[in-house]
Amino acid sequence: MTGRSIVFLTDYGLDDEFVGVCHGVIARLAPDVNVIDLMHTILRQDVASGALALSRAVPYMPKDAVYLAVVDPGVGGERLPLALETTSGAFMVGPDNGLLSIAWKRLGGVKEARVIESRDVILEPLSRTFHGRDIFAPAAAHLASERPIGDLGTVAPAERLARISFPAARVRRGRIDCVVTWVDGFGNVELNVRPSMLQEAGLGRGFRVGDVLFPTVATFDAAPEGQSVAVEDSSGFVAVAVNRGSAAELLGLHEGDPVVLN
Amino acid sequence: MTGRSIVFLTDYGLDDEFVGVCHGVIARLAPDVNVIDLMHTILRQDVASGALALSRAVPYMPKDAVYLAVVDPGVGGERLPLALETTSGAFMVGPDNGLLSIAWKRLGGVKEARVIESRDVILEPLSRTFHGRDIFAPAAAHLASERPIGDLGTVAPAERLARISFPAARVRRGRIDCVVTWVDGFGNVELNVRPSMLQEAGLGRGFRVGDVLFPTVATFDAAPEGQSVAVEDSSGFVAVAVNRGSAAELLGLHEGDPVVLN
Amino acid sequence: MTGRSIVFLTDYGLDDEFVGVCHGVIARLAPDVNVIDLMHTILRQDVASGALALSRAVPYMPKDAVYLAVVDPGVGGERLPLALETTSGAFMVGPDNGLLSIAWKRLGGVKEARVIESRDVILEPLSRTFHGRDIFAPAAAHLASERPIGDLGTVAPAERLARISFPAARVRRGRIDCVVTWVDGFGNVELNVRPSMLQEAGLGRGFRVGDVLFPTVATFDAAPEGQSVAVEDSSGFVAVAVNRGSAAELLGLHEGDPVVLN
Repeated sequence: MTGRSIVFLTDYGLDDEFVGVCHGVIARLAPDVNVIDLMHTILRQDVASGALALSRAVPYMPKDAVYLAVVDPGVGGERLPLALETTSGAFMVGPDNGLLSIAWKRLGGVKEARVIESRDVILEPLSRTFHGRDIFAPAAAHLASERPIGDLGTVAPAERLARISFPAARVRRGRIDCVVTWVDGFGNVELNVRPSMLQEAGLGRGFRVGDVLFPTVATFDAAPEGQSVAVEDSSGFVAVAVNRGSAAELLGLHEGDPVVLN
Repeated sequence: MTGRSIVFLTDYGLDDEFVGVCHGVIARLAPDVNVIDLMHTILRQDVASGALALSRAVPYMPKDAVYLAVVDPGVGGERLPLALETTSGAFMVGPDNGLLSIAWKRLGGVKEARVIESRDVILEPLSRTFHGRDIFAPAAAHLASERPIGDLGTVAPAERLARISFPAARVRRGRIDCVVTWVDGFGNVELNVRPSMLQEAGLGRGFRVGDVLFPTVATFDAAPEGQSVAVEDSSGFVAVAVNRGSAAELLGLHEGDPVVLN
Repeated sequence: MTGRSIVFLTDYGLDDEFVGVCHGVIARLAPDVNVIDLMHTILRQDVASGALALSRAVPYMPKDAVYLAVVDPGVGGERLPLALETTSGAFMVGPDNGLLSIAWKRLGGVKEARVIESRDVILEPLSRTFHGRDIFAPAAAHLASERPIGDLGTVAPAERLARISFPAARVRRGRIDCVVTWVDGFGNVELNVRPSMLQEAGLGRGFRVGDVLFPTVATFDAAPEGQSVAVEDSSGFVAVAVNRGSAAELLGLHEGDPVVLN
């Protein structure tokens, strides 16, 4: 392998050849570059969910990675195609709709951003519906091959880039108002709550969501099968879980839903 | 990486180890070869659907790729296992059931075809049910490592190879009779109709399918959410879509279904 | 590529970024190592099913592979994280719950096992729920880069390692009592029965399961569509199948179910 790894996230799913076609585009331009398929099953057009997944992955990816992310409900419309360098030295490529914004904060912020517009980069004919193939994958391949970002297009002022943010959890004595930031495939429900916030609210030993009690435990299997529990998850946030079951099903929760702990 | 990339398409799905086992077979024989997983979720045993997906991908794959395609309802029976070189210099490996035939046309036609029968290539013991592992993956690995195609087996006369073709759309004033060539994972429905054919039929501004009106738009999000539209898709064909919805569900259409535009 | 290939199997599924995050961890530590995704859709927490899939793959993987397998219902609990070398020269990494045990038998047995506990290997902070990322993937990356297994931790006595085994089939005249060892994605049902055992029981030409007759055939398509048949599958075991249908659905069978052939 030579050059930087490309870390690839989309909502294309695995039922079509979309992901594979982007791999082909990259292999034509940068045959020796390693592509890490981070995930392609982001809920269709759910930009916030994609932004959170990308951000969770950052600490575990190569430091000089080129992030290639496409969740793009506005494809073919007004939103700009972006390439940017972060303060940490990573690159990111994707639509200007906030998808990259939570991750770039973890990567030290935007050092330089460009609108991808070079005719050397964009594939011809340019489709109106598949910019992952025609704009973003080739841009990532060029950056992974150490082509200067300045070759991709004109400067996009960093302060004008679209951003996504979430309301912070509200912590009071005996109550936390928070939101679901992630439902994983096991049905575990991550909240935007740190273990220290539970302590602060006096809920360190456990809490209720509606009628269900979630005692705090160290590990899933510290509780009997079917028991609801609260744990510190692998990202350092509080998650509610059911040992060998699904907390998301039990509580009827989805990403973005508000939750009250008390 | 050294050698040619292998572009890998099957109907094996992702619920078994079939795809991973083929990767292992390739890695044993050609450890430095890059494998591009084009797609493994072709509808089971749907040779035509696989042939179309392979063909759509051709313009975006490395020019010297080795295509390894397995959708093989006749595995273990009479159909021959093929390896072939195209006029463009790519190689293809797969069953002689038409799966490769639409793609090889885009690759300039068949220059030389061989029946895979060499005992140096086929794995022992040869199963009757998993020729992807035992015949096709090793053949692709050998070709990707620049082993001459003549080593794989005897010549198969190109004119006898199985082919798939589709009826062309029929264009009249105010009416086009066509077929569905692809339903993608978003529910967008591609037809075997070029935008120029809509013009020819006087349907350039839009058409009906049954009771539903599909006005022609440049991009999905040029229409309000839930609006049915017709667009030029990323392969240059006319597709009907519903902005942030599924046209396939709305119309009850599947690949191969006949459709009347009027 | 340099070093050994990593063969990666989990029950993480493809709906989350878990698999991709492990790829990132590997790429940081061993950027030139090839990772073969054997399969990530083992039924959640089904250690036996994972152990069987891993074992079936062994003959087709590179001989010097590092197997990285995570099906780990006891994550964060008492079970030890293992790294081991097999007599054949392959390495294996995973939880000490039997997951690796059927495969290591095919690899000649355990030559040396270690508990993964080195602070140079385990990621900080160590989560209690995602040891694939924090313990197993880094251990596999170190081994694939030819770091000595002795660096990972203290010796784990091979005779104390957890093992999984299945009851052998019971063969009598006119009757075999066996179990389902695999239901593949096509609905084909593999039994722990060799073709020679059918001969021994006098069932070489076919048998019944309940009311359904399964004549022995050489290949799936030797029978008409919809016909139930018995074949020798690609692992050399007897499987019952329905040509272009699902024997698992027809018989209502799942992995581990007992079956009587007569």
